[in-house]
Amino acid sequence: MQKIRYFDSAATTIMSQTALNVYEETAKTYIGNPSSLHTAGIEAKALLDQSRSQMAEILHVDPKTLTFTSGATEANAIVCNSLLWKLQKPHVILSNIEHSSIKEYVRLMKHLGWKITLLNAPDGFISAQDLAKALTKQTRLVSLMLVNNVVGTIQDIKSLVQVVRSFETENGGRKIHFHTDATQALGKIPFSLEDLGVDSAAFSAHKFHGPKGVGVLYNTDPSVESLSRGGGQEIGMRAGTENLAGIASMAAAAKEAADNLQANAEKVSEINALLRKELSFIHIISPDHDCSPYILNVATRILPSEVFTRMLYDRGFCVSSGSACSNNAKQKGEGVLEAMQISPELGRTSIRISLSSDTSKEDALALIQAIKTLYQEHV
Amino acid sequence: MQKIRYFDSAATTIMSQTALNVYEETAKTYIGNPSSLHTAGIEAKALLDQSRSQMAEILHVDPKTLTFTSGATEANAIVCNSLLWKLQKPHVILSNIEHSSIKEYVRLMKHLGWKITLLNAPDGFISAQDLAKALTKQTRLVSLMLVNNVVGTIQDIKSLVQVVRSFETENGGRKIHFHTDATQALGKIPFSLEDLGVDSAAFSAHKFHGPKGVGVLYNTDPSVESLSRGGGQEIGMRAGTENLAGIASMAAAAKEAADNLQANAEKVSEINALLRKELSFIHIISPDHDCSPYILNVATRILPSEVFTRMLYDRGFCVSSGSACSNNAKQKGEGVLEAMQISPELGRTSIRISLSSDTSKEDALALIQAIKTLYQEHV
Repeated sequence: MQKIRYFDSAATTIMSQTALNVYEETAKTYIGNPSSLHTAGIEAKALLDQSRSQMAEILHVDPKTLTFTSGATEANAIVCNSLLWKLQKPHVILSNIEHSSIKEYVRLMKHLGWKITLLNAPDGFISAQDLAKALTKQTRLVSLMLVNNVVGTIQDIKSLVQVVRSFETENGGRKIHFHTDATQALGKIPFSLEDLGVDSAAFSAHKFHGPKGVGVLYNTDPSVESLSRGGGQEIGMRAGTENLAGIASMAAAAKEAADNLQANAEKVSEINALLRKELSFIHIISPDHDCSPYILNVATRILPSEVFTRMLYDRGFCVSSGSACSNNAKQKGEGVLEAMQISPELGRTSIRISLSSDTSKEDALALIQAIKTLYQEHV
Repeated sequence: MQKIRYFDSAATTIMSQTALNVYEETAKTYIGNPSSLHTAGIEAKALLDQSRSQMAEILHVDPKTLTFTSGATEANAIVCNSLLWKLQKPHVILSNIEHSSIKEYVRLMKHLGWKITLLNAPDGFISAQDLAKALTKQTRLVSLMLVNNVVGTIQDIKSLVQVVRSFETENGGRKIHFHTDATQALGKIPFSLEDLGVDSAAFSAHKFHGPKGVGVLYNTDPSVESLSRGGGQEIGMRAGTENLAGIASMAAAAKEAADNLQANAEKVSEINALLRKELSFIHIISPDHDCSPYILNVATRILPSEVFTRMLYDRGFCVSSGSACSNNAKQKGEGVLEAMQISPELGRTSIRISLSSDTSKEDALALIQAIKTLYQEHV
């Protein structure tokens, strides 16, 4: 069997052994439902609280601000759905480079007659000026991602939040909720939610070697309300029996990622630099500043993304022609690249190489060699 | 440490060793995102499809009708939320004995100005006559549960569906969606979704020794539409990276439960009969016909549920004074019992004993003895 060399860690990562051990141990040991009042329930609830405190410590926030979800998609959905409680039709500001879990809400929002402004991100960055121009007295939600999943650009969320806060002050103090999808950030780049000043943020465990199907919503805005409170779990923010083993496993994976953040970032940055240097004969789309070292978007210029990536797949390399989530939706990464005003020639031939702490230099060298060979064969 | 004797399997069950093994094996082996187009993604997608086929075989339905979710709460939510796409305000029929994941929607529905009819269930059963009277030309959704989680009554969903279908025919054929929350049914009582004639049904893996945080929505109605299509996973019905290990594990647990359904039901029915016989000195709320053997609701008449159950907790018994999900919501099982027209005296002193294939006769005898002793001490 052909060796698989995995460069699609922005799509998903494999569970770490630590995370898997915690999952197994929890599933075997904790028999109760955290909402039950008996001994088994109390023990489960204690581990749930402990996991929340552990996540809160990693994120440097109050445990009360954290709601466990089935992933970042659901965390994003809770914030967007919350607007359905508003009796007046709100104005919403999103960017054209948001992940589909946010951007697909545009369809529902338009259907409901809400006003939406979609900001572009020239060269990958959303500008404070564009945001300032877009704000209106009807704006209730601004959702802009922290690290872009297609090219890796890191938005200056702190400045963007300040634009919103200034607007609020100038306009009588009415609250505008600022949400950030921080899925590609946790365990990869250092950030402080409190320093950024966002009202809410979404995370997904499987992006940092935790289990799939688990995520967390950070929220400090009491006006965010879940569509249904269901069984009242997670302080009414997210109904359904808590995935205790998954949650404890996520906390373990997050701790592992946080403890090794610096060392992993150095290792990954070195591989990223190697790729940038050796692939300089093609076009590097990801900017060399304010960009996650974990994502490198390049363009061959010579063959469509789908063709070139398929040739790489055939040689055992797992890269991406867009985000995994955009493969179903038939709207490839090009939508994001267009919003970044990347030329169609580059957009059509782009390839996303995404790394993790598991990525080896040996695999990177093999990928470089494969791209060089394929390029020479087809130029 | 005190031995835990677990009688709260309607709240949650522990993962079977088979389910845990499948989880671990999948998490270790399948590195890709099922939405990715490379080898690792294709392998993950193949296992996802295989798990769907396995679940479909167990439910005797077309795999295309199944959407994997984070649990029954989310499966119920997809159906309820789908009504938000309707431009006209719909009329909805629910029962007062629904699980909180359905019943809590009443708040949102009322807020949005929809009309809601809540049916009672005298002695635990929803009557076809009441349903027939409640139907209007504006009715768009009827949601009635298959097995009640507090007392175990099995509704005659087939007859209830027929009432709706007759109404549709008499009124120009306009479609009314019939949903059933079948969380307490799968792997426990035999049923056929196609025979019942429902449009959709919700299930949760952790109720049949599968993992928490995984469930499935059965749906045959093309007009059901997710609020957000997100990354387009699950044919656009449920966005978010699929919890592959959880899904494969659920399929394994469902197969185990289905393969042993008859044997487990016999074993559990025997324990249920023993409990009914030996506890006949107190009041048995759960009817002795059309009732799941897995749930037995009794009333001591002498002490409030919370007090009696706490005494049992102190002796190592895990029983419930309502559903686990109602503990957070501060609306105990009594709401359900009231809707069943159970007298307040019985409702206030009720205890839910719920069984699983793991429940031993020895534990049941110990519970009987404990209840007898406590009763004699407090009568």
